[in-house]
Amino acid sequence: MRKCIISLSAALILAASCVEKAPVLDETLLSSPDGTLTLRFGLSTSGRPYYALNRGAEDVILPSALGFDLVDGSSLKEGFAVVGVVRDSLDETWTPVWGEEERIRNHYNEALVSLRDSLGNAMDLRFRLYDDGLGFRYEFPQENRLVYFKIREELTLFALTGDHTAWWVPGDYDSQEYNFKECRLSEISRYCEKMRIHNASQEGFSPWGVQTALQMKTDSGLYLNIHEAAVLDYPTANLLYDPARKTFQIHLTPDAEGVKGRLQAPCKTPWRTVMVCPRATDVLASRLILNLNEPCALEDVSWIHPVKYVGVWWEMITGKTKWSYTDDYPSVQLGVTDYAASTPHGKHGANNENVRRYIDFAAENGFDAVLVEGWNEGWEDWFGKQKDFVFDFLTPYPDFDLPALNAYAHSKGVRLVMHHESSSSTLNYERWMERAYTLMDQYGYDAVKSGYVGDIIPYGEHHYSQPLINHYHYAIVEAAKHHIMVNAHEAVRPTGLCRTYPNMIGNESAMGTEFRARINPGHTTILPFTRLQGGPMDYTPGIFEQDMSITAPGQSGKMHHTICNQLGLYVTFYSPLQMAADLPENYARFPDAFQFIKDVAVDWDKSLYLLAEPGKVIVTARHPKLSTLNASAESLSRLKDGRKDVICGAARFVYALPEGAHTLQGATPRDVWYVGAVGGAEEQEVSFRLDFLTPGVQYEATVYADAPEADYETAPQAYTITREIVDETKAYTLRIARGGGFAISLREIL
Amino acid sequence: MRKCIISLSAALILAASCVEKAPVLDETLLSSPDGTLTLRFGLSTSGRPYYALNRGAEDVILPSALGFDLVDGSSLKEGFAVVGVVRDSLDETWTPVWGEEERIRNHYNEALVSLRDSLGNAMDLRFRLYDDGLGFRYEFPQENRLVYFKIREELTLFALTGDHTAWWVPGDYDSQEYNFKECRLSEISRYCEKMRIHNASQEGFSPWGVQTALQMKTDSGLYLNIHEAAVLDYPTANLLYDPARKTFQIHLTPDAEGVKGRLQAPCKTPWRTVMVCPRATDVLASRLILNLNEPCALEDVSWIHPVKYVGVWWEMITGKTKWSYTDDYPSVQLGVTDYAASTPHGKHGANNENVRRYIDFAAENGFDAVLVEGWNEGWEDWFGKQKDFVFDFLTPYPDFDLPALNAYAHSKGVRLVMHHESSSSTLNYERWMERAYTLMDQYGYDAVKSGYVGDIIPYGEHHYSQPLINHYHYAIVEAAKHHIMVNAHEAVRPTGLCRTYPNMIGNESAMGTEFRARINPGHTTILPFTRLQGGPMDYTPGIFEQDMSITAPGQSGKMHHTICNQLGLYVTFYSPLQMAADLPENYARFPDAFQFIKDVAVDWDKSLYLLAEPGKVIVTARHPKLSTLNASAESLSRLKDGRKDVICGAARFVYALPEGAHTLQGATPRDVWYVGAVGGAEEQEVSFRLDFLTPGVQYEATVYADAPEADYETAPQAYTITREIVDETKAYTLRIARGGGFAISLREIL
Repeated sequence: MRKCIISLSAALILAASCVEKAPVLDETLLSSPDGTLTLRFGLSTSGRPYYALNRGAEDVILPSALGFDLVDGSSLKEGFAVVGVVRDSLDETWTPVWGEEERIRNHYNEALVSLRDSLGNAMDLRFRLYDDGLGFRYEFPQENRLVYFKIREELTLFALTGDHTAWWVPGDYDSQEYNFKECRLSEISRYCEKMRIHNASQEGFSPWGVQTALQMKTDSGLYLNIHEAAVLDYPTANLLYDPARKTFQIHLTPDAEGVKGRLQAPCKTPWRTVMVCPRATDVLASRLILNLNEPCALEDVSWIHPVKYVGVWWEMITGKTKWSYTDDYPSVQLGVTDYAASTPHGKHGANNENVRRYIDFAAENGFDAVLVEGWNEGWEDWFGKQKDFVFDFLTPYPDFDLPALNAYAHSKGVRLVMHHESSSSTLNYERWMERAYTLMDQYGYDAVKSGYVGDIIPYGEHHYSQPLINHYHYAIVEAAKHHIMVNAHEAVRPTGLCRTYPNMIGNESAMGTEFRARINPGHTTILPFTRLQGGPMDYTPGIFEQDMSITAPGQSGKMHHTICNQLGLYVTFYSPLQMAADLPENYARFPDAFQFIKDVAVDWDKSLYLLAEPGKVIVTARHPKLSTLNASAESLSRLKDGRKDVICGAARFVYALPEGAHTLQGATPRDVWYVGAVGGAEEQEVSFRLDFLTPGVQYEATVYADAPEADYETAPQAYTITREIVDETKAYTLRIARGGGFAISLREIL
Repeated sequence: MRKCIISLSAALILAASCVEKAPVLDETLLSSPDGTLTLRFGLSTSGRPYYALNRGAEDVILPSALGFDLVDGSSLKEGFAVVGVVRDSLDETWTPVWGEEERIRNHYNEALVSLRDSLGNAMDLRFRLYDDGLGFRYEFPQENRLVYFKIREELTLFALTGDHTAWWVPGDYDSQEYNFKECRLSEISRYCEKMRIHNASQEGFSPWGVQTALQMKTDSGLYLNIHEAAVLDYPTANLLYDPARKTFQIHLTPDAEGVKGRLQAPCKTPWRTVMVCPRATDVLASRLILNLNEPCALEDVSWIHPVKYVGVWWEMITGKTKWSYTDDYPSVQLGVTDYAASTPHGKHGANNENVRRYIDFAAENGFDAVLVEGWNEGWEDWFGKQKDFVFDFLTPYPDFDLPALNAYAHSKGVRLVMHHESSSSTLNYERWMERAYTLMDQYGYDAVKSGYVGDIIPYGEHHYSQPLINHYHYAIVEAAKHHIMVNAHEAVRPTGLCRTYPNMIGNESAMGTEFRARINPGHTTILPFTRLQGGPMDYTPGIFEQDMSITAPGQSGKMHHTICNQLGLYVTFYSPLQMAADLPENYARFPDAFQFIKDVAVDWDKSLYLLAEPGKVIVTARHPKLSTLNASAESLSRLKDGRKDVICGAARFVYALPEGAHTLQGATPRDVWYVGAVGGAEEQEVSFRLDFLTPGVQYEATVYADAPEADYETAPQAYTITREIVDETKAYTLRIARGGGFAISLREIL
C-alpha cells in the first residue's frame, strides 16, 4: 500500500507539473557528442513523461513534464508506457545559401522515444542533443487512435534551477515590437503590464507571460536560451512563468475558436529548444535553431542573393513625406475612388522625381536596390479599420510610373524592392498575391517587403495563431515559385525556416529602427541573443541624424544611439538584407562615416563573436564570402598601396586593381575583415585582439569610433575615423559611448 | 409638461420597437404606381425612424422602428431629423439573360429620406414601392460622421397585424437544409428546437428565430413575404419573432468576432422586402427581388447558357458508389499520400468506365452535360475535420483520366461539369481557385458545382456571415472572368444576385433531393414561395426510384413522391440548370415517363402560375424561349402530323421536320407549352384551363398523371400517359396523389 501511496503522490506532484525527485520507472539517458550535456527522459509512476537536462554535474532543466490537453477534454499526459527507444546520431556539414559562415556543422545524438497509452494514443518524443543545447519535439505517427485532434494547451515545461536573470519581452499574440527588460525571473510580473504596447488585438495576457526566444543567465554564469525551431502549421509559443515552482510552461497562441493547434497524424510539433552555453558569445555562435530546421526545399537557389538597399521609407516614418496621396476623402474605395481626379496633398513620397533621386543615390553609392513604400493606391485609410479590401498590390498612384521607374532603375544597375502592406488583411492579400507576384515578374522586381500592421483578418485570428503561421509560409512558398525574395514585417518571429526557404531573406518581428526615440540604448545588444536566433532581421540601421526635428521639420524625438553605433550594427546584426535607412541628404553630411556602410559586406564565410553580454555589448568580426563577380560600384577609398579597389558582388568582396586598370583582368583579391561593436546604456571600454587575421599579412585598418565626447544624448554625431597598418598581433582597447559602438574595416595591403 | 410626458412615453413605446399610435412629427407618404400599396415613413418625437405599410385600407405592416446598434456602444436609432426627401419613379422593362419570362417590368415609386442627427451621423432610407411589395434599404452617404463602423445589430422591425399563418425554417447561421413548418406565428417556438438539424456549427439559436424568405398568410387572405434582396458585403438575416408584440426583428449573422456587419461609408445595406399579394400565384409571379438587384454587371454574356444535365452523383448520395478511392489510410495528405500505390476499395464512382457510361447516356438523351463528383484526390477524410488543405481542385484520382474524359464528352457534344467541394475550407479554396478555374478553361469545362459542406474556415465564421457572403461573391466574379457558370451548394441562399451576375446559374441553399426520405411531401410546393424568390435552385429532381434499397442494395429509406411529382417539378421549379438526377438504369425502366424530362425546356419566355397554395399545390404553365439553333438531340416522339421533331438549343425549342428531311432547312417551329404540377401530403383534384394557348391552334397534349392508385407510400411509380388533341378551350380536372403531381407537354399540330 505504501508504495502505491508514494506513486500517487508522485503523480500528483508531477501533475503539478514539476518534480525534483520523481520516482521514475526507467530513465533514458542521452549524451551530447562531446558529453557536455546529458538528457534524461522518463515516466512518472502515473505514466507521465518528463525530461531533464544537465551540463556536466550542473542541473540545467529539472525534471519537467510533457504532454497536451486536448479540446475534446482528453489529454496526452498520463498513462503512457515506453514501447521503444531508437537512438541515432548525425555529424554533417551543410552550406547555407547565405549566412554568417560558409559551412555549418550539424552534430547531435538523438533518441526517439515511442510512447503509447492504453487507449491507443501514440505519441513519440524526438530528442536531439547538441553540445550547446537540446531540441525536442512531439511526433504523432499514423498508426494511432489520434487522427485529427485539437490542442487545448501544450503542457511542455521548463523547470529552472534558480531565479535566473532574464532578458524578455511581454507575452503577446500579435506583436513582438517591444523593448527588452532585464530582471530576475521572479520580477517579471512587476514590469510586464506597464511594458505592454496596446497596439495589438490581444488584451489581458498573463503578467508572467514572455515570448520566445527567452535569454537567461544563471548565477553560476551559464547562458540559457529557450526558443522554438521550425514552427510550421502550428501556433507560435509564449512562455508562462510560475514563480512558485520556477517553471515556464508553453502557452500557445489560440486561433479564432480558441484552439491552440489542429493536428492531423502523421505530424510533428515544432522543436522546443534549450541552449546551454558557458559564454555569451557561444549563444551568438550557436547554430542550434538552423540545424533543427529541414534542409533547403528549393531546387534552384541561383536567384537568391543578398541585398544592400536604400529606400523611400525613412522620410515617411519620420513624417517628412507620406505614404498617401490625397486628403480629399474620409475613406477610399479601390476601383471606385478616382485618384487621378483628386487633389494631391503634395507630400506623397513615392513620386517619380523622388524615387529617381533615390535610384541615383543607390547607383552612385553601390546599393543593389531601392525600396519604395506608398506606391500603390489605398494608403489614405489603410490602418486600424480592419478594412478587408485595403490594397490590390497592383495599382500605382498617378505620380508613380511603375514601368518607367523600373526601367530607369535597371538602366543604372539597381532594382526596385516591391512593397506589399497587407494591413493584416491576409484574406485579401492571398486573393491578390498571384497577380501581385506576376506584376513583379513582369517589371523585374525580385524582392518584396511585406507588412502585417494591425488586427488580423480573418477576424479573431492573431499574428501568431496557426492559420497565420500557414499564411506566412504560403506567401514564402508562392514567392519562391516566382523567384521572389521575401522580407516580411510584423509577421511572426522566424524560427530558422530560412534554412529550408532561403528566399525568406528578412523579417522584422521585433522592435526595429522605425520605433525611433522609443528604442532603449542597448536594445541591439539583446536582439542577437533572442530575435536573431531564428533568422535575420531587417532592423533598418544606419540612422545618422538622431534628431527627428532635423530630418522632418515639425516632428520631434531623438534616437538613443551614436553614429558609430549604427555603423557597428552592420557587423553585429547578421542579415543578408541590409538597409542604409537614413535619407540621402543626411548621409551627404557625413560622407566619411557613410563610407563604411558602402564598403561593408552583407554575406560572410566566417563570423567571430569577440565579446558579448546581453544589454551591454557585442563585438563581432566577420569575413566576407566571395560572391558572384558583378562589379557593382567603385569604392572611393584607396589603400596605401595606391591601387583602386572594386567592390564586387553583393558580398562586397574587394578586388584591388593595378593603377590604370579598368577591368577585373589582373585584379588581385584583397583579404578583408570587418569588425563591429554596439554598446548599451553605459559608457565602457572594450579590449580585443585581431588574432583572427591571416598571420604575417598587413592590413589597413579604418577605425570608425565614438569620439571622446560622443554620447547618445549629448553628442550622438561625434566620431573619429583613423587609419593604421595592423596585423594579427594587434590589440585594441576602444571606448564605446553611452548608446555607442564602433566599426573597423580591415583590408589587406598587397 | 404634459406634452413632454406624452412624447417621452411615445419614445419609450417606440423604443420598445413598435407603436400602433405613435405621435409623429411628419409623415412621408409614398404610393405604389397603381395606388394599391401605401408606405408611411415618419419619426417619433424622440427622432426614431419608423415605417408602415398599407394595402388599400388594410394595415399590412404597423409602424415599425428602424435603425442600428453599433459595436462601439452608440446607436443609429434616435435623435434623427429629416433633412430631405427626394422622390423618384421608374417604369422600365429589362431582359434577363435567362429566366421565367423574356422581359421583366420594373415599376416603382421611390422616396429617399435623408436623416441626420446632432452628432453628424448621416443615414438615408431609400424606399421603393411596387404594386406587389416594398423594398427599402439604409444608405450611408460619404459626408458623414460615420466612416468605418461596425454593427452590433440591425434593429429593423416588421410589426404584423395578427397571428398569421407562416411557412418557415428555423433560424440558423450555417444551414438552410430544413423542411418547412406551417403554423401560426405564435406557435413557432413550439416546433423550432425539435426541427433544428444539428449539423451546423451554431447552437442555441432563439426558438423564435426563422430564416428569410418567410412566407405568411393573413386571416384576411393576404400573402405576405419578408425577404432580402442584393445581399452583398453584409451578413444575411434571420428574423426573430416577438410573440407579445407580433413583431419580427432582423437578426444578422455574426462574424468570428461577433460583429454583424462592417461598413465603410459611402455604402448601403441589402434591401429589406415585404411582398403583399392578394393571391398566392401573385407571389410566384412577383419579380420584386430581381428588380431590386442591380442590372447585369457582365459585358459579355454570350457564354452563359441553360444546362440540362445528368451526373455521377445520385449513386454516391444513395451509397451505391463512393466519392473516395481507397480505405488504406485513416487520413490522407494531398501531395504526400500516394494514391497510385494505394489499394482501391473498388466502389469509386468517378472512374473512367462509369463516367463514359454517363456521357453516352447524356448524348443519347439530349442532355448538355455530365456532373462528376469525387473525381479529385482528398475524399477519404474530407468531412467534419475542419481540415484546411482538404482538396487542391486539380489532381484527379488515378482512375479518372481528366483530359481523355473531356475529349470523349466533347466528341459526343456533351460537356463535363466540374465539381469543387470546398469542405467549407474557403481559405484553401481561394488559394487554389485561380488554378482550378484555369484547369477548367484548359479542358473545356464551362460550369462548376461548388460545395460548402461543414464548418467554415476561417474559424469562427458562419456560412452567412459577411466574410462568407464576400467569398461566394468573389467566387462568382472570378468565375465570370473565366467564362465559368457557378452552381454553389450549401452557400448562402441567393437574393436575386443572378440579375447582376447571370453566371450564377444555380444554388442549392435549401433542402434538396439529396435529403431523400427526410423530405416531407409538399416541400416542393413551399420552396417557390421562399427559397426560389432569390434565384433558381439546383433541386436535382427526377428521382423515379423512391426506394433506396433498390437503387443501392443494402441502403434503406423511401422518398415521399410519385414519379409524376418529379416530372411536375421541371415546370414548377424554375431553374436554368436542371438535373435528371436518377441513375440511367432507373430511367431505363420508365422510358415513357423519362421522355418528358428529355423534352422539357429549361429556359422560358412566358410563365403562368395557374394555381398555388404553399404546402398544398402549385400548377405552372411555361412557354420555352427560342434559343440558339444548335440541334442537340432528336426527339423520340412524333406527333399525329407525322413529322419528326428536332429539339433545338438548351431551351428545347421544337422544330418539326418534313418527312425525310435531315436538316433544319424547311423546318417549321411548333408552338410548345409545358404544364407542371406538384402537390402536398393530401390527395386532391385540381382544375384549370388551357386558355393561354394560341386561340384557334390545335395542340397535341401528352399528359403524365398519377395513376388512380398512385400514392407516395403505396404506389409511387404508378402513372398514366395519355395523348389528346386540345385547344385553348380545354379545361382539365386532374387528380394529384399524396406526394404526387402531373406534367403536360403541349405541341402545336401543324
